[in-house]
Amino acid sequence: MLLLVCLFALLFSSSSHAADFCVAKLKGAGNPAGYACRMPSKVTVDDFVFTGLGVAGNTTNIISAAVTPAFVQQFPGVNGLGLSIARLDLAPAGVIPMHTHPGASEVLFVVQGKITAGFISSLANTVYVKTLKKGDVMVFPRGLLHFQLNDGEINAVAVVSFSDPDPGLQITDFAFFANNLSSELLEKSTFLDDAQVKKLKKVLGGTG
Amino acid sequence: MLLLVCLFALLFSSSSHAADFCVAKLKGAGNPAGYACRMPSKVTVDDFVFTGLGVAGNTTNIISAAVTPAFVQQFPGVNGLGLSIARLDLAPAGVIPMHTHPGASEVLFVVQGKITAGFISSLANTVYVKTLKKGDVMVFPRGLLHFQLNDGEINAVAVVSFSDPDPGLQITDFAFFANNLSSELLEKSTFLDDAQVKKLKKVLGGTG
Amino acid sequence: MLLLVCLFALLFSSSSHAADFCVAKLKGAGNPAGYACRMPSKVTVDDFVFTGLGVAGNTTNIISAAVTPAFVQQFPGVNGLGLSIARLDLAPAGVIPMHTHPGASEVLFVVQGKITAGFISSLANTVYVKTLKKGDVMVFPRGLLHFQLNDGEINAVAVVSFSDPDPGLQITDFAFFANNLSSELLEKSTFLDDAQVKKLKKVLGGTG
Amino acid sequence: MLLLVCLFALLFSSSSHAADFCVAKLKGAGNPAGYACRMPSKVTVDDFVFTGLGVAGNTTNIISAAVTPAFVQQFPGVNGLGLSIARLDLAPAGVIPMHTHPGASEVLFVVQGKITAGFISSLANTVYVKTLKKGDVMVFPRGLLHFQLNDGEINAVAVVSFSDPDPGLQITDFAFFANNLSSELLEKSTFLDDAQVKKLKKVLGGTG
Amino acid sequence: MLLLVCLFALLFSSSSHAADFCVAKLKGAGNPAGYACRMPSKVTVDDFVFTGLGVAGNTTNIISAAVTPAFVQQFPGVNGLGLSIARLDLAPAGVIPMHTHPGASEVLFVVQGKITAGFISSLANTVYVKTLKKGDVMVFPRGLLHFQLNDGEINAVAVVSFSDPDPGLQITDFAFFANNLSSELLEKSTFLDDAQVKKLKKVLGGTG
Amino acid sequence: MLLLVCLFALLFSSSSHAADFCVAKLKGAGNPAGYACRMPSKVTVDDFVFTGLGVAGNTTNIISAAVTPAFVQQFPGVNGLGLSIARLDLAPAGVIPMHTHPGASEVLFVVQGKITAGFISSLANTVYVKTLKKGDVMVFPRGLLHFQLNDGEINAVAVVSFSDPDPGLQITDFAFFANNLSSELLEKSTFLDDAQVKKLKKVLGGTG
Repeated sequence: MLLLVCLFALLFSSSSHAADFCVAKLKGAGNPAGYACRMPSKVTVDDFVFTGLGVAGNTTNIISAAVTPAFVQQFPGVNGLGLSIARLDLAPAGVIPMHTHPGASEVLFVVQGKITAGFISSLANTVYVKTLKKGDVMVFPRGLLHFQLNDGEINAVAVVSFSDPDPGLQITDFAFFANNLSSELLEKSTFLDDAQVKKLKKVLGGTG
Repeated sequence: MLLLVCLFALLFSSSSHAADFCVAKLKGAGNPAGYACRMPSKVTVDDFVFTGLGVAGNTTNIISAAVTPAFVQQFPGVNGLGLSIARLDLAPAGVIPMHTHPGASEVLFVVQGKITAGFISSLANTVYVKTLKKGDVMVFPRGLLHFQLNDGEINAVAVVSFSDPDPGLQITDFAFFANNLSSELLEKSTFLDDAQVKKLKKVLGGTG
Repeated sequence: MLLLVCLFALLFSSSSHAADFCVAKLKGAGNPAGYACRMPSKVTVDDFVFTGLGVAGNTTNIISAAVTPAFVQQFPGVNGLGLSIARLDLAPAGVIPMHTHPGASEVLFVVQGKITAGFISSLANTVYVKTLKKGDVMVFPRGLLHFQLNDGEINAVAVVSFSDPDPGLQITDFAFFANNLSSELLEKSTFLDDAQVKKLKKVLGGTG
Repeated sequence: MLLLVCLFALLFSSSSHAADFCVAKLKGAGNPAGYACRMPSKVTVDDFVFTGLGVAGNTTNIISAAVTPAFVQQFPGVNGLGLSIARLDLAPAGVIPMHTHPGASEVLFVVQGKITAGFISSLANTVYVKTLKKGDVMVFPRGLLHFQLNDGEINAVAVVSFSDPDPGLQITDFAFFANNLSSELLEKSTFLDDAQVKKLKKVLGGTG
Repeated sequence: MLLLVCLFALLFSSSSHAADFCVAKLKGAGNPAGYACRMPSKVTVDDFVFTGLGVAGNTTNIISAAVTPAFVQQFPGVNGLGLSIARLDLAPAGVIPMHTHPGASEVLFVVQGKITAGFISSLANTVYVKTLKKGDVMVFPRGLLHFQLNDGEINAVAVVSFSDPDPGLQITDFAFFANNLSSELLEKSTFLDDAQVKKLKKVLGGTG
Repeated sequence: MLLLVCLFALLFSSSSHAADFCVAKLKGAGNPAGYACRMPSKVTVDDFVFTGLGVAGNTTNIISAAVTPAFVQQFPGVNGLGLSIARLDLAPAGVIPMHTHPGASEVLFVVQGKITAGFISSLANTVYVKTLKKGDVMVFPRGLLHFQLNDGEINAVAVVSFSDPDPGLQITDFAFFANNLSSELLEKSTFLDDAQVKKLKKVLGGTG
């Protein structure tokens, strides 16, 4: 039977696309399904383990918050497996500003503290807001605007998981104000006042 | 052979899920894959034809623009087929404000006039803007913020197609200002000034 | 906060598979999900714009018709985004002969003139035919035989969109008569007469 | 531990959508993903077993051939599982005429006799033909025209499997000639001669 | 503009399949894509929040472990969104025995304590084992055998997320020994000794 | 019209990702969607034909059984097409031991002899077992434990098809006993006795 085992092993081991997993070769060219697979013979258990989420992110910034992602770019073992994870740290009054993940739904689990979180549906612009305490879970459907805010008195920590190895992250403020989109086009397409636009462009490093 | 034809027809006609198509029963309960299928025997060619896009939408509103959708809710023949379509009308200075489609990519084809359109990537918040003339096409990747603006002197018309029968539409201004999301939470999660928030809530009918 | 923006940008910009988009490198090897992505830093707005559809295709041929595709091979920006587009020109009496798209559904929008279009279901071989006028839309479910015909008196123009960046196009006449499939096999598998087969092979350049 | 087992069983047994399987309720309304699931408590092993393929189909018809499908309509256990199966019987000179499966690829395995099979790509209309003997396998990519022919001297039998529970089947001859599509439209969209069209309409029961 | 907002709301609110989300009606019949959607007007924020994971599961059982799922059956808000979550509690020496999730990959995040976890590839039966400490993450590719074990001295807690709302859970021991599969068939298909089989059937409540 | 045919051919032939098919380049790096495509110009009919299944596999081994796969690694023509096939040979008393396919459902067709087959659901660990005779078909849902056994008196042969070009194969005995997973971890995670573990590790070549 030893022979048989070897035979099966042989049948499947000479190839870099496995039914089992496809650890990302990040340096090569990606494609719509993700990254190319590393040869299974080069893969070790450490490709399936990510150790960066045990430490708090640095929240000494103007949002008093930090996101530490374990997306496919940081954690190549999730390539092709349909999920990824990240850590949120929110100092008191910290906020992950209004944002979307263009390609994934999100589930948030509160590990410590309290987090007020909400999302807005496209259906009648209904708002779904809740203050979550330790152990609570909230789901944010794919592509919809949502935010997380620590209105408690201690640091809040959450684990967030996504339905894609590469969920993307589009923070509305950064999309509007942290680039060279002309103030004229931005104002016409958002109805924001010129003063407001210029003020936030200055804070976020935008030009135009 | 007639018999054979009949036999094949029989094999497949007694059932409401067809390999071929699945015209939506909009009144029943939907599910993550779309709507239940109407019985093929009840389906006629008119279920596959939509006639509402030949007429300009009414642009006498404050955005000087109109969207006429032929999504699955209006055009049940596209249910389960992975695409849908709509018509855009933009009077001079008209604008489809910054928005996303949570579940679909979009291709815009300019039928008449000139349209300045743009989208913003989540990757470094890069802006991709272009002024399109009659016959030009632009693609807006799924879930990313984008806008369309008529900065020409005549009415502009475009046909837009989507990669989903039910693409959704989340206009950022409506999501922020046209509901009961409290000004406090909104300001904290967008860094917009209180005066700006209140001004736009008033215009768009928001409360809180 | 500037720092934070930069940080986010950094996190995601060093890689050629983006959550946002994946502009095709057409020269490399494709795979079942599409083409490899170009590095985002090499991508410009022009990769998302296609300008070839503003001009009528040349209809001085025996079908008096032209198809101008903006599929992924011509329009690399749609790679991985689940849709594509094309322009149809039909001179009076012009026809896009019976054909299928092996991998996509199609929505047709009549921009000018009148088009009689139809498809045939596999379910009892039911025919769905309609004469469409300017502004009308018709959907052709994936993989089913369909045709478009200008029985009006002026040139007809349509925009067609597909549920795949690479929908394929199999025109039955070309598949039967424009290659080296032996007349014997073709006649046995279609019940067409030998004279008919030889006549159309001659017109369409087939041998065998 | 007994308790624990019961607990797990309880957690998952009160619901008709199971991660495991979803045996079709064929009488209810289908939807784009297939049919509704029967309650697992009503499911028995016989829902996963199909016994109709052991017997030769009746080939005393003008194509000297028979297809016995075990698609979801006949074999509800495959609902949602992404595959199905059928039996082909081909008497000498029997043929499964040119056809497509709009929604599935096919693999054919020759159980008995010899079968000449072929498909035509949309890419340059290339023909791929081969005479297969007992034990040979051929794959026909989704949506492409293909045929199977017994040019041997004994009955041929094949097992064909599909990449979908509901692959559909569109036989070109039936689509063209076995319905009420007007001869005029058919001739314009296929370039077939009027005599040819009328002859085959007569054989296959078509009108118009 | 108020009118416009209302118009958009109207367009999309009269239907129970939304682009945005599809909260499960658990009592109706499921289908391969999940459960039918509740009407959006009946949905509240509490449908998107799950509060059961803040409390430790009861580990006073023979595996000294507990799984508290927030799968679609317990947490209907994740229906159709491609992910779900659960809590693991492992007392010292507690174990989640060898198991698979037939339809999902898993990411485990250690909230407290130490967990030794491993999976086995089908490729040459390679073992990937690691002892994880607080904050570490490990991914278990879909369908592969894996286990989790607390070999530390304090209770261990983990949050596990899945790439499907309904991942399923097949514990090998329960599948082998906690049902009426005959000992004869089980022994022939596993090479386990009769005494071993009977011993574990007794512990786990199996018959046959 | 010849020109037109050539034009279409040209449009689509210069690229290695075709809508039609994607024959695998097995030597290059795979990715989550499968293998890169060979250039269509290098593809011949033999890429779509597999001839290895006509001959019985060698069953003179301790399981008295053989699996001859035509998965993508052996049969590159199925790459990206969503299915594959294999041949089972079972001498009298031969067995394909308890196993799963992590990424595919399976349909088994009995070509010769009798096969007792079964699978176990995760739902309450229900067993579905049946003795199949020539011509019978059984479906094994994706990811669930199943086995096949010849309890007849002649050799049994079956054709099995899968819903994926690369279904994977995890035989529980090999996963447990044919590698270097430590006996201690294995015993803790399976409740098997040390003697049983050591006995089977010896038979199957495991260490630790």
